[in-house]
Amino acid sequence: MSDFQGRDVLSIRELTKSDIQLVLKTAKKMVPIAVGTRRSRALEGRILATLFFEPSTRTRLSFESAMARLGGRVLGFSGTEGTSVQKGETLADTIRMVEAYSDVIVLRHPQEGAARLAAEFTEKPVINAGDGAGQHPTQTLLDLYTIWDEKGAFQGQNVTLVGDLKYGRTVHSLTYALAELGAHLTFVSPPTLEMPREILEHVKERGLTFRTAHRLEEVIRDADVLYVTRIQRERFPDPQEYESIAGSYRVDEAILRDAKRGLIIMHPLPRLTEIAPEVDRTKHAVYFKQASNAVPVRMALLDLILGGAE
Amino acid sequence: MSDFQGRDVLSIRELTKSDIQLVLKTAKKMVPIAVGTRRSRALEGRILATLFFEPSTRTRLSFESAMARLGGRVLGFSGTEGTSVQKGETLADTIRMVEAYSDVIVLRHPQEGAARLAAEFTEKPVINAGDGAGQHPTQTLLDLYTIWDEKGAFQGQNVTLVGDLKYGRTVHSLTYALAELGAHLTFVSPPTLEMPREILEHVKERGLTFRTAHRLEEVIRDADVLYVTRIQRERFPDPQEYESIAGSYRVDEAILRDAKRGLIIMHPLPRLTEIAPEVDRTKHAVYFKQASNAVPVRMALLDLILGGAE
Amino acid sequence: MSDFQGRDVLSIRELTKSDIQLVLKTAKKMVPIAVGTRRSRALEGRILATLFFEPSTRTRLSFESAMARLGGRVLGFSGTEGTSVQKGETLADTIRMVEAYSDVIVLRHPQEGAARLAAEFTEKPVINAGDGAGQHPTQTLLDLYTIWDEKGAFQGQNVTLVGDLKYGRTVHSLTYALAELGAHLTFVSPPTLEMPREILEHVKERGLTFRTAHRLEEVIRDADVLYVTRIQRERFPDPQEYESIAGSYRVDEAILRDAKRGLIIMHPLPRLTEIAPEVDRTKHAVYFKQASNAVPVRMALLDLILGGAE
Repeated sequence: MSDFQGRDVLSIRELTKSDIQLVLKTAKKMVPIAVGTRRSRALEGRILATLFFEPSTRTRLSFESAMARLGGRVLGFSGTEGTSVQKGETLADTIRMVEAYSDVIVLRHPQEGAARLAAEFTEKPVINAGDGAGQHPTQTLLDLYTIWDEKGAFQGQNVTLVGDLKYGRTVHSLTYALAELGAHLTFVSPPTLEMPREILEHVKERGLTFRTAHRLEEVIRDADVLYVTRIQRERFPDPQEYESIAGSYRVDEAILRDAKRGLIIMHPLPRLTEIAPEVDRTKHAVYFKQASNAVPVRMALLDLILGGAE
Repeated sequence: MSDFQGRDVLSIRELTKSDIQLVLKTAKKMVPIAVGTRRSRALEGRILATLFFEPSTRTRLSFESAMARLGGRVLGFSGTEGTSVQKGETLADTIRMVEAYSDVIVLRHPQEGAARLAAEFTEKPVINAGDGAGQHPTQTLLDLYTIWDEKGAFQGQNVTLVGDLKYGRTVHSLTYALAELGAHLTFVSPPTLEMPREILEHVKERGLTFRTAHRLEEVIRDADVLYVTRIQRERFPDPQEYESIAGSYRVDEAILRDAKRGLIIMHPLPRLTEIAPEVDRTKHAVYFKQASNAVPVRMALLDLILGGAE
Repeated sequence: MSDFQGRDVLSIRELTKSDIQLVLKTAKKMVPIAVGTRRSRALEGRILATLFFEPSTRTRLSFESAMARLGGRVLGFSGTEGTSVQKGETLADTIRMVEAYSDVIVLRHPQEGAARLAAEFTEKPVINAGDGAGQHPTQTLLDLYTIWDEKGAFQGQNVTLVGDLKYGRTVHSLTYALAELGAHLTFVSPPTLEMPREILEHVKERGLTFRTAHRLEEVIRDADVLYVTRIQRERFPDPQEYESIAGSYRVDEAILRDAKRGLIIMHPLPRLTEIAPEVDRTKHAVYFKQASNAVPVRMALLDLILGGAE
């Protein structure tokens, strides 16, 4: 029985280095099933409940695909319209209902801390699929898988995070994880959207060096991994200021002229204009591969948590 | 072949005492499959259509779970937005479409009589999952299962129904069923929300005694089963009157001081304030257990109707 | 390996006569599985993604039923509310996400050309399930199956299309297909809603004769197949004009007095008032049968495309 059996996955920070390595290795083994070249009934008869209090197409569909490839079933809701939540039911009561209908619960919720609260009210394992400004650990796991699968290691890689580093849940979690796994980190953002001080402190405490910059041009030549995130319009009261700032962090062919040959570009998707479509054709673009890695990584996690046969 | 094979389940009043007993006993046998400790493919290849013309999370998800645990499939819609119904299709035509895509149809509809109408237009079995002020027989079956499973019998039990007894579909159906099965009934409600006279007459005709009261304090000490329902704000034009009345039927630790040790408290859920959260921790609280009983009971019904292998 | 394996189905015009015949014959073999008398696991482990950018209950549910009967799985969305599309994601990016989660993609989209665009961005087979004024080839295949199954052949049949022939996607595609298969065609519509000239030219070029009329009474006695479509209110600025025109193309028992004994009446559904309910009871009515044919036809297509075991 693995350590993961029956376990909640609420935050990437609760996973040890060896936990993460187990997920990544298990995910690698899942690939032939994920792409449909091998059949599995490892989770036949098992039920995943997807409780999406706010919709997230990519996360929901990749969890559904993961469960289907392993022979399991999915039920749940996406958006709260018409649900008992709208009638005033508490999250605790919704969870205590759904735990009777399923073996594992994936929760997406707009409020930070919702997944942890949910986990307190059920014996069934809860996977946090994003709780507001909080955590989204399976996104981080698939980001880590992508780096590991493409680069073979974390040590010695220069991972450059660009965009909104202040509010971006994804880049916070990835930074915490990479601080354990030992990559060199570079943070590139507008001055008003810098990585929070406590996270930089944490990286330092883990004994890692890092670099910060305000211009992508300054650091692009050193990057092995470029992790791009969206700068949201809502962060800037002045639309013109937004256009100008967002534009200066846009990744296109021009800026990639200085990049290493082996640079990989990642993005949690959906992207808007922060990566130019012309970049899709380059060998640097791995963001669609990254999205497809969601399936084996989530399969690995579900199989480990449910003690499946794979 | 059971009597149930191919049969519509439209109203609890159409089920005989022995029908009900068959469902309860079959449900009991389903429990190991419902909780995932035993696998079943009894309904492999079979399809349940869930036509929810109004959403009902609990009912829909427990039917989906029931079908999944038996290896069957589910398709359908929840809410009519974007459906052919919105384009003006009649219920009869929708049913004649869906019968070709499924083996059994679960219908939730805001209008009383909708399930019976649907059943007239299809050869496929129709299960009424609530038709406005009408019937919701599978809710009654899981209520009955809970009483039987917790108490071992109906005879000799004092079942006390509290809340809105005038408009509550759930308590009407449960009263009809318990009148056949022989429990002693106590009805507790505000004067304006009393159990309709024709239902009381029916109970009398079945040879049962019953008691009515306006205050829960008067009757709590005699109750073996306390079935709580919500008093809806909409029933009272004056908000203050609502608050005062709803409050006086609220179940909390204070009122339970006089209760029997073996009292069980039931609720169809979702609950709002009518049961205080402190009650959840008491041994009286079986409402979450009751919600989980939805799965084996609906499994039993689906297996009996579809002539599954279990 | 069939010619269909891995193939996109974007337009009925891209299917040859022998392609169509293969689908119809395969569909015929699927019927016992479609109606649930035979079990199949031909597509076990395979995943269909249903991307319905606009809802279509009938099309979506029949695809889901088809996949379920063959043991496959379905995931997707219906309506774009809350999807990444609403966040501004392009169709190309949505497709490149979903191709990693599935083996075949069914796309419904309000814009003409969307399915072809989607197919350019993915290696996975794309089935067009309606793209605005464009194509809906699987509807045409089930229409053809119904004629073939009921009449035994296309040659020598007088197929009379009635209603909105100008804007009706369904009747355009059916006309193109029947022009290949050799039926005699009759077109009946209001003068403002006649079949487009280029389609009539195409029929002529294929060497077929056809007839046009403005009154159903003139042609009903010659029809072997009457294909009825809705005349939409939106086409007529004057509500009274609409009522009068729509009424004059309504099919009821009176107009059927002159019909051949073997006439079959078809309709893509949902119908509103264009076929009177009294017609449902006649032996002419095959429109519900036609709707049910959606399942074996879509099963055939999915099995051929995915190279299933059936």
